[in-house]
Amino acid sequence: MATLILQSLGCDVAAINTVQLSNHLGYGRARGSRTTPLEIIEIWAGLNEAGLNNFDILLSGYLPDESFIDSVLRIVRESRQNNRKNSKETLFWLLDPVMGDNGRFYVSETIIPAYKQALPYADLILPNHFEAEILSEVKILDVKTLETALSTLHSRFNVPHVIITSLNLTYPGVDKNSLIIAGSSMKSDKSPRIFIVKVPKIDCLFSGTGDMFSALTLVRFREAVCEIPGLTQVSHWLSLDSVRSIDLPLAKAAENVLASMHEILTISIKCRDEEMNAYYEMVGGVEAANANENASRKHKAALAKAAEVRISRNLPLLKYPMKMFNAIEL
Amino acid sequence: MATLILQSLGCDVAAINTVQLSNHLGYGRARGSRTTPLEIIEIWAGLNEAGLNNFDILLSGYLPDESFIDSVLRIVRESRQNNRKNSKETLFWLLDPVMGDNGRFYVSETIIPAYKQALPYADLILPNHFEAEILSEVKILDVKTLETALSTLHSRFNVPHVIITSLNLTYPGVDKNSLIIAGSSMKSDKSPRIFIVKVPKIDCLFSGTGDMFSALTLVRFREAVCEIPGLTQVSHWLSLDSVRSIDLPLAKAAENVLASMHEILTISIKCRDEEMNAYYEMVGGVEAANANENASRKHKAALAKAAEVRISRNLPLLKYPMKMFNAIEL
Repeated sequence: MATLILQSLGCDVAAINTVQLSNHLGYGRARGSRTTPLEIIEIWAGLNEAGLNNFDILLSGYLPDESFIDSVLRIVRESRQNNRKNSKETLFWLLDPVMGDNGRFYVSETIIPAYKQALPYADLILPNHFEAEILSEVKILDVKTLETALSTLHSRFNVPHVIITSLNLTYPGVDKNSLIIAGSSMKSDKSPRIFIVKVPKIDCLFSGTGDMFSALTLVRFREAVCEIPGLTQVSHWLSLDSVRSIDLPLAKAAENVLASMHEILTISIKCRDEEMNAYYEMVGGVEAANANENASRKHKAALAKAAEVRISRNLPLLKYPMKMFNAIEL
Repeated sequence: MATLILQSLGCDVAAINTVQLSNHLGYGRARGSRTTPLEIIEIWAGLNEAGLNNFDILLSGYLPDESFIDSVLRIVRESRQNNRKNSKETLFWLLDPVMGDNGRFYVSETIIPAYKQALPYADLILPNHFEAEILSEVKILDVKTLETALSTLHSRFNVPHVIITSLNLTYPGVDKNSLIIAGSSMKSDKSPRIFIVKVPKIDCLFSGTGDMFSALTLVRFREAVCEIPGLTQVSHWLSLDSVRSIDLPLAKAAENVLASMHEILTISIKCRDEEMNAYYEMVGGVEAANANENASRKHKAALAKAAEVRISRNLPLLKYPMKMFNAIEL
């Protein structure tokens, strides 16, 4: 999904797939094959030989284990060397540290130290609430601890930009129907300047929204940075200390990304409901859909398919979202 | 490239990659891995288990050898069974028989009988001049032999729709600066009705234009078929015998496809020239670019990169091409 989003927003992408699976795991199980870390390095060697090694940006998402992080880190470091040699801007690395959600790991916990080692090389990271806690070692319970977590990611791990992609947090005006995201670009003294955005919660578990968020953020952040004269030449695209949190390019990016996501997911949930109503009509109701093991397996697959994010028919909404949400200063 | 084009034109795509390479072979060499025919069948099994097996359309492109054709053929046949079981339209198969060009094979010639066995299952094939000759066993030298070749593909192999994607043929008004494509949808007696389109030749070897042609043709053909009431329900989307060749949905599709291709390739060649001029300025001229083996290798890679088709920044041109070319009756 990230590749399509990047391409449809005008990026030339050299994608290295870490898996080739029949379907995402929202369907319960999948068949197919996985790329090994060695194969990733082999492709990187091929890109080098073909002179295709002067990238502006690297986006990394789900990585199965620490050996994959090592491979990506190697690509980041060698890319930066290449770019220096060619007097090119340094590579910007958006690292999405996909580890788990809601207190549960998707990957082995042995990945944590590898991510912590990688963080100082990243320019922007996009952890969710759980991942931000794991990386910062700060339990995020309120505004104060949120600030501590972001502060730690900036100062201890030297990460210039962070967006925490969803927070379960009591905050004025935030109830069970909404959620908040929080972002920060550090100042020169590594202190955070935090903005938050409140958005309505959409009641459906969609697969791929993490990829969607990171691909959109990358493009929108780059766009917002390009609007500030000279900022692409500044190390890590870090804004002057005088820039307020809600005026940060990162905040502008987040506003745009959340608007696109809200529009696409609203459509997706409408389509899901229509598809599932048709399904229940076809099989003879919800009860019949769960009548036995075979029916229930088909039902689960139908639910997963109905909940696919509707991207390809809604690319214009991705590209030109309506202004919907405003960042506020924490 | 096919996946991006299909998605950007609104198709939901389940793509099975046959290779994951660092670059296309226009760069001289590439590293990476190949999917095996068994892995393809494994992914197909996974799609079945996840209930993702009721496809409308299958597009197959480059297949390394006959075992891959067997895998695809199995998917086509099982898909059609699935669709019948679910009272769904039968799967439409666009088979692009990628074998070679200008008298030279890219693949082993042992693939020929496998393609010939597959042809009767295909709805639309897109051979180039060389491939059309191989499959029809007719040397295409003039209008008469072109007619014989198309007639053979319809009647002997039962292929309903054919577009020969480029023809080297003397024809009134066609000189070295232009080329022609020829298409035909068979009548109920399997006789051809042939249209041709003349287009200006673009002087550059682009990689991926075959994929671009087939993905665009698929979408545009489907669109044109949908405009004729009831035609999607007709077996193989075959138009009534009374429809003249230039009024065929296939002819409308070809006009649109060639317009998109012409616009995108015109831009691509302009970008290529700009990039290569900048390159020669950087290295100190064309002579310096070939001064030694190392320079020459870099030069070749730079040429290949400069000649990449510019898709992602020009998707609107793909989507809304200007009307440029008109099919004419042969």
